[in-house]
Amino acid sequence: MDPQDACRIAIIGLGKVARDRHVDAISRAPGARLAATADPQASLPGIPAFPSLEALLASGTGFDAVALCTPPAIRTRLAAAALAAGKHVLLEKPPGATVAEVTALTHLAHRQHRTLYATWHSRHAPAVEPARARLATRRIRAIRIDWKEDVRHWHPGQDWIWEPGGFGVFDPGINALSILTRILPRPVFVTDAELLLPANRATPIAAHLRFTDTEGLDGRAAFDWRPTGPEDWTIRIETDEGPLAIERGGRRLLEGGLLLLDQPKAEYPAIYSRFTALAGQGASEVDLAPLALVADTFLLSRRHTVEAFH
Amino acid sequence: MDPQDACRIAIIGLGKVARDRHVDAISRAPGARLAATADPQASLPGIPAFPSLEALLASGTGFDAVALCTPPAIRTRLAAAALAAGKHVLLEKPPGATVAEVTALTHLAHRQHRTLYATWHSRHAPAVEPARARLATRRIRAIRIDWKEDVRHWHPGQDWIWEPGGFGVFDPGINALSILTRILPRPVFVTDAELLLPANRATPIAAHLRFTDTEGLDGRAAFDWRPTGPEDWTIRIETDEGPLAIERGGRRLLEGGLLLLDQPKAEYPAIYSRFTALAGQGASEVDLAPLALVADTFLLSRRHTVEAFH
Repeated sequence: MDPQDACRIAIIGLGKVARDRHVDAISRAPGARLAATADPQASLPGIPAFPSLEALLASGTGFDAVALCTPPAIRTRLAAAALAAGKHVLLEKPPGATVAEVTALTHLAHRQHRTLYATWHSRHAPAVEPARARLATRRIRAIRIDWKEDVRHWHPGQDWIWEPGGFGVFDPGINALSILTRILPRPVFVTDAELLLPANRATPIAAHLRFTDTEGLDGRAAFDWRPTGPEDWTIRIETDEGPLAIERGGRRLLEGGLLLLDQPKAEYPAIYSRFTALAGQGASEVDLAPLALVADTFLLSRRHTVEAFH
Repeated sequence: MDPQDACRIAIIGLGKVARDRHVDAISRAPGARLAATADPQASLPGIPAFPSLEALLASGTGFDAVALCTPPAIRTRLAAAALAAGKHVLLEKPPGATVAEVTALTHLAHRQHRTLYATWHSRHAPAVEPARARLATRRIRAIRIDWKEDVRHWHPGQDWIWEPGGFGVFDPGINALSILTRILPRPVFVTDAELLLPANRATPIAAHLRFTDTEGLDGRAAFDWRPTGPEDWTIRIETDEGPLAIERGGRRLLEGGLLLLDQPKAEYPAIYSRFTALAGQGASEVDLAPLALVADTFLLSRRHTVEAFH
């Protein structure tokens, strides 16, 4: 693609995920170009930098789209401002603090004839589409999800994850739910849940969920931020044609113990290919199923207080 | 309509709302007839009675549809069984314990070519459609909802409302949200919320919500189950053409202080007219916006412990 035709993207919120993933992915996507950043503290060498989206919009800098990499609590206000200014919008996961606010953004994008893309980066892991294809025709009996990682390693100093609306352990857990809702042929729903909340925090550090579908699937998930060893990001599926396992967050796929696939993740370049394609068509892609499962879990769960987290 | 053509309805769960509302409404709806009841304890004179939906289905009794009036926590399992048996399904409000389970039922109803109707009885109050028509073209600045009633009067001895998934004060509060989401021209979303939980209960006895839309609406709601005086079920709306007020849960509509409308509610006969029409067309009607607002509120709210409730 001619560089003149590239989608000029501004990254809003130059925090960990933006620096670790988005900057590189935009540079690799043929149809995308990083045009600016907006962050009160951070900037990148050689890229026009602004302290806020408002300042960027007021500057007259030319750009077509924003990638919103801020914490979810403020994402919707920024997305609405960008859409109102005629920009396409890419939302990091989770796409917002609530289901209804992303629904409202979807309506606004439609009225503005602009693209809203709610990304679920884990859905671009290499095991996901092969797993989906295999499950389309099988009877699925049981699913076990283990999603365990060290919060100190993955969210160093990020206080917002512990505030109301910060999701707690559902920040990584929603990645598992985004894979789950992609690979299954039918919707699932949570039937019981326990949230474990540190005595000094507003969001859970661990959670146990039971889920099912209208066919009686036996589903269980354990999310935990306390383990300090290697990450465990695994989805095990029992089917009438034997077991499938998705390991390492979607890098590996095993069928009956046989390794079918083991590849690097490379999730973010695929996200930007999809975003530029959607923007080219003026289409939106917003699947709220993972976020609805999290909101549902908070609605029906029992809560238990556990050791304070410092 | 010829009685032979009437939609034969079985009431599942013969509790307070079924006895107070549904039995009478079915008898008044020209296209509907009460064919059976299913409840482990209760029955009605002259109507075939069964202890459960399973027993009713096994009996061979002829019927076309079920009205699910059980507590929401068990509604989805019953709805899935009824749809699988080829019956149309009417869901009392709230339509389920979670957003995702009703989404799953909607998929199942579609596959079964049967009607799923998620009712919101307050939307059939006489003030609702006139309010909606007035708000379609006005700029809406602010909304204040007060929804206050005595839980001891309205939910005598109903322990399920205090269990996880029992909704607490959102059981009446969702009626206000069902009106709100019907009368507004754009989706709203909750931005902040406080839940007040009795020290001995799992669901809130009161809640304060702030909500907005992508145009910056200033919305606030106060739900409270503690007042012992007369009910206050009021929605006040400030617009660029003056104030509107919906009072008494939708019985009264005032514009700039002028009483436009004051009628009995008669919500349930309208529900059965709609249900039989939907069943005749094989169409479904499921709006999850009120339920998503409640789940969202639990997701992002701060919690405070208040006096135990006995």
